[in-house]
Amino acid sequence: MAGSRDPLVVFTPSGRRGRFPAGTLVLDAARSLGVDIDSVCGGRGICGRCQVEQSVGAFPKHGITSAAGHLSATGDLERAYAERRGLAAGRRLSCATAIAGDAVIDIPAASQVHRQVVRKELEVRPFDLDPVVRLHYVQVAPPDLASPASDHVRVLDALEREWGLAGLAVDLPVVRELQAALREGDGSVTVAVRDGSAVAAAWPGFRDRAFGVAVDVGSTTIAGHLASLLDGTVLASAGTMNPQIRFGEDLMSRVSYAMLHDDGAAEMTRAVRAALRSLIEELTTTAGVGTDEILEVVLVGNPVMHHLFLGLDPTPLGQAPFTLATERAVRTTAAALELDAHPGAEVYVLPCIAGHVGADTAGVILAEQPHRGDAVRLVVDVGTNAEIVLGNRHRLLAASSPTGPAFEGAQISAGQRAAPGAIERVRIDPTTLEPRFKVIGCGLWSDEPGFAEATREIGITGICGSGIVEVIAELFLAGVVTADGVVDGRMGERTPRVVPDGRTFAYVLSDGAPRILVTQADVRAIQLAKAALHAGARLLMDAYGVDAVDEIRLAGAFGSHIDVRHAMILGLVPDCDLERVGSAGNAAGAGALIALLSRAARAEIEAVVRDVVKIETAIEPRFQEHFVDALAIPHRTAAYPSLSRVVDLPARPVAGRAAPDDRSARRRRQPVAAREEER
Amino acid sequence: MAGSRDPLVVFTPSGRRGRFPAGTLVLDAARSLGVDIDSVCGGRGICGRCQVEQSVGAFPKHGITSAAGHLSATGDLERAYAERRGLAAGRRLSCATAIAGDAVIDIPAASQVHRQVVRKELEVRPFDLDPVVRLHYVQVAPPDLASPASDHVRVLDALEREWGLAGLAVDLPVVRELQAALREGDGSVTVAVRDGSAVAAAWPGFRDRAFGVAVDVGSTTIAGHLASLLDGTVLASAGTMNPQIRFGEDLMSRVSYAMLHDDGAAEMTRAVRAALRSLIEELTTTAGVGTDEILEVVLVGNPVMHHLFLGLDPTPLGQAPFTLATERAVRTTAAALELDAHPGAEVYVLPCIAGHVGADTAGVILAEQPHRGDAVRLVVDVGTNAEIVLGNRHRLLAASSPTGPAFEGAQISAGQRAAPGAIERVRIDPTTLEPRFKVIGCGLWSDEPGFAEATREIGITGICGSGIVEVIAELFLAGVVTADGVVDGRMGERTPRVVPDGRTFAYVLSDGAPRILVTQADVRAIQLAKAALHAGARLLMDAYGVDAVDEIRLAGAFGSHIDVRHAMILGLVPDCDLERVGSAGNAAGAGALIALLSRAARAEIEAVVRDVVKIETAIEPRFQEHFVDALAIPHRTAAYPSLSRVVDLPARPVAGRAAPDDRSARRRRQPVAAREEER
Repeated sequence: MAGSRDPLVVFTPSGRRGRFPAGTLVLDAARSLGVDIDSVCGGRGICGRCQVEQSVGAFPKHGITSAAGHLSATGDLERAYAERRGLAAGRRLSCATAIAGDAVIDIPAASQVHRQVVRKELEVRPFDLDPVVRLHYVQVAPPDLASPASDHVRVLDALEREWGLAGLAVDLPVVRELQAALREGDGSVTVAVRDGSAVAAAWPGFRDRAFGVAVDVGSTTIAGHLASLLDGTVLASAGTMNPQIRFGEDLMSRVSYAMLHDDGAAEMTRAVRAALRSLIEELTTTAGVGTDEILEVVLVGNPVMHHLFLGLDPTPLGQAPFTLATERAVRTTAAALELDAHPGAEVYVLPCIAGHVGADTAGVILAEQPHRGDAVRLVVDVGTNAEIVLGNRHRLLAASSPTGPAFEGAQISAGQRAAPGAIERVRIDPTTLEPRFKVIGCGLWSDEPGFAEATREIGITGICGSGIVEVIAELFLAGVVTADGVVDGRMGERTPRVVPDGRTFAYVLSDGAPRILVTQADVRAIQLAKAALHAGARLLMDAYGVDAVDEIRLAGAFGSHIDVRHAMILGLVPDCDLERVGSAGNAAGAGALIALLSRAARAEIEAVVRDVVKIETAIEPRFQEHFVDALAIPHRTAAYPSLSRVVDLPARPVAGRAAPDDRSARRRRQPVAAREEER
Repeated sequence: MAGSRDPLVVFTPSGRRGRFPAGTLVLDAARSLGVDIDSVCGGRGICGRCQVEQSVGAFPKHGITSAAGHLSATGDLERAYAERRGLAAGRRLSCATAIAGDAVIDIPAASQVHRQVVRKELEVRPFDLDPVVRLHYVQVAPPDLASPASDHVRVLDALEREWGLAGLAVDLPVVRELQAALREGDGSVTVAVRDGSAVAAAWPGFRDRAFGVAVDVGSTTIAGHLASLLDGTVLASAGTMNPQIRFGEDLMSRVSYAMLHDDGAAEMTRAVRAALRSLIEELTTTAGVGTDEILEVVLVGNPVMHHLFLGLDPTPLGQAPFTLATERAVRTTAAALELDAHPGAEVYVLPCIAGHVGADTAGVILAEQPHRGDAVRLVVDVGTNAEIVLGNRHRLLAASSPTGPAFEGAQISAGQRAAPGAIERVRIDPTTLEPRFKVIGCGLWSDEPGFAEATREIGITGICGSGIVEVIAELFLAGVVTADGVVDGRMGERTPRVVPDGRTFAYVLSDGAPRILVTQADVRAIQLAKAALHAGARLLMDAYGVDAVDEIRLAGAFGSHIDVRHAMILGLVPDCDLERVGSAGNAAGAGALIALLSRAARAEIEAVVRDVVKIETAIEPRFQEHFVDALAIPHRTAAYPSLSRVVDLPARPVAGRAAPDDRSARRRRQPVAAREEER
């Protein structure tokens, strides 16, 4: 019992305080106050995770007036640890340091279980670690003939006695591990406890390594991070192509493959799982980690990818009403998905939102947090479909818009994936109408000295999604493309780059081999894609009851590479203060990483997703209206006040001339109409 | 709302009563009163499980004075059901019958969910069904584009709406099934719900079949029953040899095999699982059931069998302190044990009690219920070890005694397993000293006409456990074997059947080919085995604080075939009123069957096992004392008052002559002593 004359101890940064009899270990004092302090070895001076620092000086505001530090002198345990693993000046092991007088003791971030994780290079917002898996070292009583208890029960007893963990479940494979680990460790084992409720793994002796993998399974690319589950450090990141591409470039062709081939879905499931295995293999090799050290895998993906890697039938996602097998978060074993990992490893798959809005969007929400602020935020993840989320902490809406693959470079005459040789940036001189551009893999603009040599190897092979958006926006600003999206043949009088192309005109962006044109059809394809995207956003704004949004975040590969100014010039997204429009990187993958490292984040996204209002573009008549309205490129008098302030938009042509091949627009609108008819 | 003038309905046998407005369906009325009434189809007139019978007449004691029945007339739904599946006279479908006036309505046993299961032929005590898995037919709302919900969530909604089942878990493999079943059944599915907490399976449309298998994995034999999980009917029973026998006849030689061979334990695990698969295949084929209709498997076995089929290392069970990997009940998937069953099938393994007292003994307790009565009951399951349970509802003790395999016919000169040709019953004329006997496979005694012909085919090949016990007891009663266990050579003067055999004597039981002798060594082997068994029982009686037991139950193959009178003459068990000594059949297997069909039984055995006091014979000095005391065969003046009343036991010899080769007794005691030294 602590008395009123016992030393006063104040822990920072929490500010928790209490009086403790002299001789109380700092770790015990901290724990009794519920101070967030890490430990794996349970106070045996092995793990070094409970380091603290005494704040020296007087702290009148804490009621501590003596300037001298009042902790016990460094003892053998600390000296042994310092020799073995090193201990920075001023640092003490709280499990080996006793209270000797009043003291202010700081728990450095690295000693906190729920420390903040900051990973700028991954474009992940800072978040609090809330480990899904924690390690606990225990020394288990030897078996005793007089009162026999099994390995299982003796380990549970030790966990309850030393860590206060009661009623933990132990599945059969883990019983096997416990048995072997206890024998090999001669009674000393480290166990991994998942969610505070189940033993997930056991190793002989002391151990402080446990890892997880977060994976974004995209239609084209599968990208993953390997991170320490203990401190959130990302040790490796890698990507690989999704081998399902050989069954179909886009989602709907894969669904068709599944419909048309008996074993089609299973074939694609095997392919994506094999790719996941290779990716995990690559990540573990890079990080110097064994696959059997992977205890958690988090997956996100769009609904079709989600169904295919989980072995669910994707074909209902190919037609109205686009019914998911499940939208709930899925927990299963790594073994059930044929992934190589620890036998006790589990997989967590983020929840889906609707038939078109998948676990990847849940990841985007988790990373971008539109549900936390007051600002009405529009988050757009552009792929073959654009997933659109709108709202703030009061309400969140989500929809998917059928943009088609034009933003990914498909359906564009010179389109290609974002790979070396692809034009990704374009500027057009409004006077000379001459272009300059950059290609992926070369740091120089095309009008800079050395560009030709620098690109000799990689070539100038095509134009990627961000490039096509920029060139069309620049052509519009230069007057070559009208607000109605017509490549104006009359400009041929001013520049040889505007050339006839069948019954329409094209702009010669690069005259090399291959010759890279921006054709009338290219402009139409982008118009249709951006109109779908814009219409989806407008539909959500209608549903939310706002005319403008406060912030826009562009996620995904395209969203990260696009120049937000050009995106807005073309009208991909509604008007917004350009200062508040930003790219979000691979937000789906960032969300997966957050869910890997935080139990709280999992609970949060499951709750948020349950409350998201789903808007189905296919059955909303206003979507068609917005779509038609959004086909044109915004001009100076249009509803882009923020943009107009920073960009000199062309005025609306006096007589809006119909596009020469407007049929293509009508043709491309069919998928939307078809979906509606299927109701 | 029911008023005081609404019809009064009394349900029997529960006696629950209530007033309901005329027109209320009988099923709804019964449910609102919590009357135990079955239904799979949810009141759609499909399953026929909710049949009731109106008791006709006046029931003054129920307050029903009108003699006329007051139920609605038979309608279309009942007529359709009767045509399709038949409806006995007087039976009504409670889901299609409305209340029209006061009525007494009987719920026949077959319409009760928790009906009693009586299976005399299996030697299973009657017990109440408490289904682990129940089937529920639901019609699921079609998916809707406007408010999209997944298959998963729509099924859960229907289960909550129609059956009041909320918050059910659905594992990934079952999500797959739900998806396929909903599509194939066009929204109508039957789901299996396990433990009221998880969906275990789904099928398109209506279904009322679900099965389980209960298996006793013995060292020698694996025996199983296949039963309907819905009504407890046993559709098939079968046994097969445990193929592990090729790795060692008894448990310890299998443990040695695991110790001496790297892959030894895994090899035996594969072997026993393959045998389990074959057994399930045989059971399903016999019963006309698909393996994918098996939703539950319950296993019992001794600790070594338990560890080997679960893939746990059995080697710690081969030496003190005989530490189990786990003693808790194990729940895992059928797939994890490589059993062919429904993908959602689970395995329940009864808890173990101690390193020598396994899940088979838990099964014996569940079947024999020593923990329920006031009588102090001794339950003995004889195998290579004898598992002994003693107690009543106040306290239960358990121990294992190292009897060795003599009772199974091993270590006996002419010993063999209980198989055709084995002598199983013996009588010896105390005057002529001539034997008569019966062999397995032939209904005749050896002195009956036709015996020679009847056994020509099968032969007289040896003597099994029950036979050796009988012949030695009979030889003792006839004076050929003394109370000290010596084959008395002087008897050679009275009969040519007593012959010299090396330095000792033997009795010629059968003079054919092979010649079947009962040797001095055979008598010693049985003496040692029965002394171990008796000493174990005495040790428990000491611990319980009783000098006598009220009841004795002999379980297991040997215990079922043995003549309890002969067992007591030899002193296998302590004295007891012979009327209260009985054989329990395969009680371990019966316990497995009960656990297959009753959730309550699982909870019960887990609770009982937690409280069982484990007595370790190897560290109890009194075990050695009792063992030595029990080596002799009880004589007339010994502590067998009950037996002495019905059997004329020989008097104690005047001068107890030492057995000529007493060394063998000492030698055989070594395992017990060795176990003690290992502490």
